[in-house]
Amino acid sequence: MSFAKRLNSLGTETAFAVSLDAADFASKGNVVYPFHLGDIDIPTPANIMDATLRAMKDGKTGYNPAAGLPKLRSILADIVGNEREIHYNTDNIIIQPGGKPVIPKFIQALMNPGDAVLYPNPGYPIYESQIEFHGGKAIPYGFLPSENGFEIDRDSVEDRIDDNTRLLIYNNYQNPMGSESSLDEMEWMASLAQKHDLFVLSDEAYFNIRYSGSSNSIASLPGMKDRTVILYTFSKTYAMTGWRLGAAVGPASLMKIFSKLAVNDESCTNHFIQYGGIEALTGNQSEVQNILYELKNRRDVLAKHLKSIPGMTLHIPDSTFYLFPDITEIYKNLQCNSYEEFRSIILKRTGVSFCTREHFGTPLSQENRKYIRFAYSGISVEKITEGMNKLKKYLSHNNVPVLS
Amino acid sequence: MSFAKRLNSLGTETAFAVSLDAADFASKGNVVYPFHLGDIDIPTPANIMDATLRAMKDGKTGYNPAAGLPKLRSILADIVGNEREIHYNTDNIIIQPGGKPVIPKFIQALMNPGDAVLYPNPGYPIYESQIEFHGGKAIPYGFLPSENGFEIDRDSVEDRIDDNTRLLIYNNYQNPMGSESSLDEMEWMASLAQKHDLFVLSDEAYFNIRYSGSSNSIASLPGMKDRTVILYTFSKTYAMTGWRLGAAVGPASLMKIFSKLAVNDESCTNHFIQYGGIEALTGNQSEVQNILYELKNRRDVLAKHLKSIPGMTLHIPDSTFYLFPDITEIYKNLQCNSYEEFRSIILKRTGVSFCTREHFGTPLSQENRKYIRFAYSGISVEKITEGMNKLKKYLSHNNVPVLS
Repeated sequence: MSFAKRLNSLGTETAFAVSLDAADFASKGNVVYPFHLGDIDIPTPANIMDATLRAMKDGKTGYNPAAGLPKLRSILADIVGNEREIHYNTDNIIIQPGGKPVIPKFIQALMNPGDAVLYPNPGYPIYESQIEFHGGKAIPYGFLPSENGFEIDRDSVEDRIDDNTRLLIYNNYQNPMGSESSLDEMEWMASLAQKHDLFVLSDEAYFNIRYSGSSNSIASLPGMKDRTVILYTFSKTYAMTGWRLGAAVGPASLMKIFSKLAVNDESCTNHFIQYGGIEALTGNQSEVQNILYELKNRRDVLAKHLKSIPGMTLHIPDSTFYLFPDITEIYKNLQCNSYEEFRSIILKRTGVSFCTREHFGTPLSQENRKYIRFAYSGISVEKITEGMNKLKKYLSHNNVPVLS
Repeated sequence: MSFAKRLNSLGTETAFAVSLDAADFASKGNVVYPFHLGDIDIPTPANIMDATLRAMKDGKTGYNPAAGLPKLRSILADIVGNEREIHYNTDNIIIQPGGKPVIPKFIQALMNPGDAVLYPNPGYPIYESQIEFHGGKAIPYGFLPSENGFEIDRDSVEDRIDDNTRLLIYNNYQNPMGSESSLDEMEWMASLAQKHDLFVLSDEAYFNIRYSGSSNSIASLPGMKDRTVILYTFSKTYAMTGWRLGAAVGPASLMKIFSKLAVNDESCTNHFIQYGGIEALTGNQSEVQNILYELKNRRDVLAKHLKSIPGMTLHIPDSTFYLFPDITEIYKNLQCNSYEEFRSIILKRTGVSFCTREHFGTPLSQENRKYIRFAYSGISVEKITEGMNKLKKYLSHNNVPVLS
């Protein structure tokens, strides 16, 4: 058996290796503090589960259209549109089994082999993998530390655009950094897309994981609606990661193509869970609010601990469930030679498990600071406190500046 | 916006147009007899729904491994293996959101652009679409009428194999014909695969929709296990079409690739419905038996009616939920110029809606008989009888041999 050559370009989520290390460490009788998980350990709201159950018992167990239930598409068009002050119709919405399947469909529908696609780095590793797998050139753009966390390194975007550049992937409310664009930055990205005729995938998975302020979409800016596909997911807002329910939102002609791809790839999204989606969007929001309240509480507790650690600096984002501290000084003090060494030492000495910057793309040449990512979606306040106390205790003994 | 060139090679399931016609006809106040549906109108067994509900309420709402729940994989390995007298391990099983996603994964993992892939015609139209979409050459092989329904036109397979031929798609218990291979034919296909070093996708969606006799898998034949991927689905056997739950079964090294593709394309299959899958495989089978009993009853009633129509001939298959009558004489008598004209006349005069041979691939040059497909999975015995009486009445007035 010889595998197809395209597999040589297929990447993966290397963060799964972190989960394996954590599980291995736990299996030896150790306590693990799981800050590496992008999953949510909060139950899905009961009203969403009940609506799903009713639909299942009511016989919504057969096929449904590849594009999804018209009612869910229509509600989503209204809600996604209203939140972003754009007008969308049912035709602009394709229901998907999760947000992720929007990525390959976007690439397959709009990118020819050899085309270049800009994508954020650090960023969700599947962007790069899907671009390369389908024969494109994945061109990373970077970020710089700023007053408000991180800002896009504009030179790193513009310098890399050439005649082959066709697509731009933009992930505001960003994984792993938690950062968000200023209005000026978003407008700059939009003008760049228009100037170079780039089509945009706006990954808005964390749009509604928002603790203060309000979210904005690049699709709302003048001239952008017709060149943007929004990746929408129920996973984060409604604690439905394992349900696999999401949507693509974009120009109707393109959504028709997405629907045809859905016929080919998946037939349709699970029928009865789409009724859970309708309840999520239109039903009682009190449990949804509680999810956000719980996450904010975790963020505040975790941030307070991290800020008190000498040599660690961080900005506290208003969105996502990630903190992305700069640990350059600690890394140096522990005399680490690699991110993996740093991660391994901390796990083995404290049980605190996290991903590093490297799990979100190969560091760019101009980077000179070191970062790690703490996710607080899968760990309780009690365990956050316990883990942080162990980390602080370990570092207070070992985080001694090395004379250089 | 300009779409990617690969979309020019993307096909679809043209049978959807039949559903639209039927819905349009019904919206005008007419009764439609839906023999076009490949869907099942029988409820999913209650014990499967209950197990799913328990899992959901028990918090199985977060991510699970891309390859699926180890317990479900292990049970499936045992059951698929026992039914086929092959030994499979957990490593041989990848859970998928339906049977369909196995097709693109098989193509993407094993076919390079320019490679030729043999596929059945008439057959499930997604085979051809996925082969061409990913840059392969789709090479159809045909069937001939035989004593036992249809047999593979062996010359049409062997003649078309050349140095570029890499893969063979084989769908025993066949959609749309309902036909099955004799042991001799299956052994011939297996020897061909070995002689020409072809890797095989064995689509076994209807393996357990079986009214008499027993099913066999090409993977069971000597030398075949290591060159075969079985497409397994819960859709038909357990009336779970809209749940989207299936699996790929094949060599562990290839299943590792499938798992990596799953990380990229879908993250994972819905978590809690996999507990429904465990119940389906290991729980009380009485409702599952009832599904089969109901389908057999429908088959018998429908077949009796069809056999009584002058000019219509058919074999009654022991498997699938399709009948594929030869309607050549009737087609001639009605002086039709195309399959679509034939379908349209019958729908408008009788309300009887069905797919034709053309919905399962372009007829091959050597074909000189006309066929249509009746599915009986989505229509009650009462409605079958009503529809058939209307069809018989219409044809008794109009199905008069034309003097030529």
